[in-house]
Amino acid sequence: MTTQLEEARQGRLTEAMNAVAVSEHVSPDLVLEQVASGRAVIPLNPAHTKAEPVIVGTAFRTKINANIGRSPDKSSEGEELVKMNIAIDAGADFVMDLSVGDDIIGIRRSIIDNCPVPVGTVPLYEAYNRAGGKGENLTEELFLDVIRDQAREGVDFMTIHAGLLAEHVDMAVKRLMGIVSRGGAIMAKWMSSGGRQNPFYTQWDSIMEICREHDVTVSLGDGLRPGCLADASDAAQFAELDVLGDLVKRCRDHGVQVMVEGPGHVPFNEIQMNMEKQSDICDGAPFYVLGPVVTDIAPGYDHITSCIGATAAAYYGAALLCYVTPAEHLGLPTNEEVHAGVVAYKIAAHAADVAKGLPGAREQDDEISRARANFDWDRQFELALDGKMARERYELTRVQDACDDDQKYCSMCGKDFCAVRNSQDIVESQND
Amino acid sequence: MTTQLEEARQGRLTEAMNAVAVSEHVSPDLVLEQVASGRAVIPLNPAHTKAEPVIVGTAFRTKINANIGRSPDKSSEGEELVKMNIAIDAGADFVMDLSVGDDIIGIRRSIIDNCPVPVGTVPLYEAYNRAGGKGENLTEELFLDVIRDQAREGVDFMTIHAGLLAEHVDMAVKRLMGIVSRGGAIMAKWMSSGGRQNPFYTQWDSIMEICREHDVTVSLGDGLRPGCLADASDAAQFAELDVLGDLVKRCRDHGVQVMVEGPGHVPFNEIQMNMEKQSDICDGAPFYVLGPVVTDIAPGYDHITSCIGATAAAYYGAALLCYVTPAEHLGLPTNEEVHAGVVAYKIAAHAADVAKGLPGAREQDDEISRARANFDWDRQFELALDGKMARERYELTRVQDACDDDQKYCSMCGKDFCAVRNSQDIVESQND
Repeated sequence: MTTQLEEARQGRLTEAMNAVAVSEHVSPDLVLEQVASGRAVIPLNPAHTKAEPVIVGTAFRTKINANIGRSPDKSSEGEELVKMNIAIDAGADFVMDLSVGDDIIGIRRSIIDNCPVPVGTVPLYEAYNRAGGKGENLTEELFLDVIRDQAREGVDFMTIHAGLLAEHVDMAVKRLMGIVSRGGAIMAKWMSSGGRQNPFYTQWDSIMEICREHDVTVSLGDGLRPGCLADASDAAQFAELDVLGDLVKRCRDHGVQVMVEGPGHVPFNEIQMNMEKQSDICDGAPFYVLGPVVTDIAPGYDHITSCIGATAAAYYGAALLCYVTPAEHLGLPTNEEVHAGVVAYKIAAHAADVAKGLPGAREQDDEISRARANFDWDRQFELALDGKMARERYELTRVQDACDDDQKYCSMCGKDFCAVRNSQDIVESQND
Repeated sequence: MTTQLEEARQGRLTEAMNAVAVSEHVSPDLVLEQVASGRAVIPLNPAHTKAEPVIVGTAFRTKINANIGRSPDKSSEGEELVKMNIAIDAGADFVMDLSVGDDIIGIRRSIIDNCPVPVGTVPLYEAYNRAGGKGENLTEELFLDVIRDQAREGVDFMTIHAGLLAEHVDMAVKRLMGIVSRGGAIMAKWMSSGGRQNPFYTQWDSIMEICREHDVTVSLGDGLRPGCLADASDAAQFAELDVLGDLVKRCRDHGVQVMVEGPGHVPFNEIQMNMEKQSDICDGAPFYVLGPVVTDIAPGYDHITSCIGATAAAYYGAALLCYVTPAEHLGLPTNEEVHAGVVAYKIAAHAADVAKGLPGAREQDDEISRARANFDWDRQFELALDGKMARERYELTRVQDACDDDQKYCSMCGKDFCAVRNSQDIVESQND
């Protein structure tokens, strides 16, 4: 079989390309051109039969990913399936199963079987698990086995930490926060303890064969993403980025779709530079960023600190935003926190699409504003990102006034002080 | 008596200027120079004896304001005092009492008596109330009486809607959302129904006398701020802004401190332009923005949609951010929503200060990251913006492991997969 990238290069419009052209309201030609150039990817493993295709690239709607998955100490298959559904209902375009610990194979299979959106994984986690949690048991063969097994099962995209090389470890561990990527830290420990090179890097051609065979999209992991503002945009981060740039070329040489993961924690003023640098070094490959968090001081609110950064990131060139929940830095997210994270990121993605002037993006804003101006609350809640919540909130302090037009104001200002009402009175009196 | 502005022009360092130099960790000379030039204001009415001075200007820490106050249909004096304390505890630098309806005089007096931060009001609301809620009873004299009375009582800054002129009304009411400023809409209705000009504008010199006498800082209201993305940066908004620019000059001619209010709803890509235009037209007077909201589609989450915009606004030149709560567009905020709004805005203000490179701003980020790297949870929560909430969240899913060092990871990744822990293992093994 061939990949979406190879098909696009041949000028062949696949079913998936047609489908995303429809869902994005764009011409199939644009899809074809963007996929062929590598500026967009359609992560879709044919074995994941339940998934609908989704395109990732700056020419299209900004996408969001929700990470779910158990930790060794918390949660289970059933609980993670619930989170998956919450994330998708709230609007997640992708889901990554980041389970670690026991039974990760079972959880992943169950997620793939049930998930209508493309699913990503970090194969290193399963490899570590299969190695009995012992670094010394990890081998290059084991890594390849896991990638192959997961590709056969239908994983649509895989984070592969191939850019963090042995020569980067020293500078990384000296940072204020050191290495904050789970996969990156395991990889660094493995290289450091055995005097070895990164096995994904050394086995890159073999990985390419598997990914090409199953059209698994590679998501180049950023094992050295900064974990605090002090470490942002530092030598370690950019040393890894240079390697990722080379790996993008090698993916494309193999006909494999590729996107690149990025920070992390970045001060607001460095986001534009980071996006432009990535695009430059990685030849326009879609950038998949985690946040970034724009201040370290607000644990418990990192869906907010990071969706500020995510809006700027998407505006300046990121194509896929990985959500951050309020639980970040503190624990495994609850169902409510998964929902809160997805909503915050839908806001960021949409705000960026509007700012970029993506055709059609602002229609929803204008329509909801029209409903608001008309006091058409039902229509407003229908159009709202989270209409159920908005309606409940409105009802909470709604003024009930049985003898009057009680829909035509809310409890914030009351009837006499409602600006929209007063503004409309002027128009009406002019028309009299 | 003279105002802070007049004192600064004379090169006299007041007690308030000295106090803000200490709290801002800057030289008194910087304060003197910024106040004298009008690029910063210290809203502090000597009659408000309980208030500590706070400086507003881009050379200083970005400040935030929390709006409280009852609506005709909801809340009371006691409830609003609770909200005031919640806002201040969460870090609000200013509080505005936007009460409308009955008993607004009693509520305001109580707030001023109890409020340790400077207090702002919108005198038009009291005038409307004293006019028995009837526009036809509003007179120029009544407006002046209210301003004088509030100035004597100790109001530190007043929003005065003097820039929305009779000639602007037609273009404003034709917008998608029309006029969304409470004061602006009342003023427009009054002008429109009586064929009158804006009374604040016509009585400007008299207002100046009162404000100079009591050193009340004028906050030039933006009655035509856009209420949706479609109305942003339009002719109505900028027509009013031109008038505000003239009024800034007239304030300064009278020795009156002045800041300028701004939008509202603005797409992310237009924020920089808006900030630069305001600074240009208003000769660097401090800009006091409401959000701005960067998308209209998320009622119930407008603390988030707007703190994205507020971060960008502060980065590009706003000095004071008016918070928006999750209740915006839906109702009067509850206590929890006041808290959520202030926290979101503390994040925005701080993220912008870090991005601007304000001296010392990033120390808190680095220190909390150091605590995080050291698994010093107590210290982390001590430094956190909302440490109480962060601690509760951590405890919620904390892994209790009696026989181990259970502080040195959290439930997100568990012990073996904790990146920070693994990263530190590398350093330790290198040191062995």
